[in-house]
Amino acid sequence: MKDLTTHTTPKEMVESRLKALPLFSLCPPETLQYLAQNAVVQTHKKGKILFIHEDTADRYYLISSGWVKIFRETLDGTQAVIDILDAGHLVGESAVLLDDEYPYSAEVVEQAEIVSLSSHELKVELDRNPVLMKTMLQIMARERKAQTSEIEHLSIQNAPQRIGCFLLRLTKQGDEGYVQLHLPYDKTLIASRLGMQPETFSRALKKLKKETDIEVKGATVIIKDLQALSDFSCAMCSSDYPCKDLSKKCSSSC
Amino acid sequence: MKDLTTHTTPKEMVESRLKALPLFSLCPPETLQYLAQNAVVQTHKKGKILFIHEDTADRYYLISSGWVKIFRETLDGTQAVIDILDAGHLVGESAVLLDDEYPYSAEVVEQAEIVSLSSHELKVELDRNPVLMKTMLQIMARERKAQTSEIEHLSIQNAPQRIGCFLLRLTKQGDEGYVQLHLPYDKTLIASRLGMQPETFSRALKKLKKETDIEVKGATVIIKDLQALSDFSCAMCSSDYPCKDLSKKCSSSC
Repeated sequence: MKDLTTHTTPKEMVESRLKALPLFSLCPPETLQYLAQNAVVQTHKKGKILFIHEDTADRYYLISSGWVKIFRETLDGTQAVIDILDAGHLVGESAVLLDDEYPYSAEVVEQAEIVSLSSHELKVELDRNPVLMKTMLQIMARERKAQTSEIEHLSIQNAPQRIGCFLLRLTKQGDEGYVQLHLPYDKTLIASRLGMQPETFSRALKKLKKETDIEVKGATVIIKDLQALSDFSCAMCSSDYPCKDLSKKCSSSC
Repeated sequence: MKDLTTHTTPKEMVESRLKALPLFSLCPPETLQYLAQNAVVQTHKKGKILFIHEDTADRYYLISSGWVKIFRETLDGTQAVIDILDAGHLVGESAVLLDDEYPYSAEVVEQAEIVSLSSHELKVELDRNPVLMKTMLQIMARERKAQTSEIEHLSIQNAPQRIGCFLLRLTKQGDEGYVQLHLPYDKTLIASRLGMQPETFSRALKKLKKETDIEVKGATVIIKDLQALSDFSCAMCSSDYPCKDLSKKCSSSC
């Protein structure tokens, strides 16, 4: 896979993008300069593998635009999609705490601009900067909470409820009544993200439409009655709509 | 639910138990004394609720013996069992990083001796002790990795494979050939832990017996051919037997 462009952008641009992340928001300019000193910005086409599960983690990545799938793969190539992340998320940063091995694989699933950063500087900075370490600890605790929620959903929600939950997460939490949405990526990927086979996804979406009167036209979803969708989807969840699990947005991969 | 006994044990005993945890293993005696100063040791019967999801987290808990279920619950009372933890695990400690709210509920499922500790001292100590903070960060990164594994399993393994995986995790990683195991808790709880209805669990266990020739007599499981069990169970997993996901044991709830 050939990259569309490869160029090092002005460091100031990378530093300001780092500063915008909750993880680095409390860092002074000299820390951001240090972290960004070996940064490289690249635009990647769909299909580009950023790294593979258990590879040595000498880089971590900030998504500037596009979508990145994080996944694990069985020996026969079946994928478990752990998450699909968009702009403003870090990928692979926790590997610096895990014996320098990536805990999953990462692949670009829609053309993406990615800032690649050197893990070495992050590791050094974590060791000498207690404020950064505390911020990372808080973010990781929230990510663990989000994963707990994910395990809850996979354990007890049925397939139509999981799709409904996915749609509700795309709304502005607090929307009411009639809502029109645009699906962020294609349905096959949504099915994988929700741990479903494409056939299961189709059947479940059909049932969800019947139960909640939503309409799906291509990538557009029309929710005529948000209350009906949340009543159906949140019935087997410890949270309700608006979703408390989303009250704190994670800065890195959840 | 009445506690069987309520007594404050010698602080030295609590301190030595804290010292044995990876999280506190690098702490000097004075830190352990500080953390343990408001510790209370209690023996609880099965059914005792230690805390409820979203309660204010003024205490965290160390399991000295017995089993504790961590779970989330829908409004109609359906439970998603996130994990079942035994001696040597901490429960609820990450709440000190999450606006002081427990991210799940915790219930004793087999008579347990529990050390209850004050969250305040842990919070103060984390703020002034970068070594403790770094250890907690590493442990949390491993827990997140373990949860990633859990999400992978729930997404792509079928029910008999999930039971097989559960059994393989009970072996000494490295066992070969014929292995005899004792189930740690009853089958209804194992079913919940694996995100299955009891009927699904029964059917899946029947299929697993047929496929891998294991025998189950009450709480005893006889694995006649460990290779056959791992070939079947690990076929839809990114890891293999012995399981790489278990190479680093977590000190707190995963």
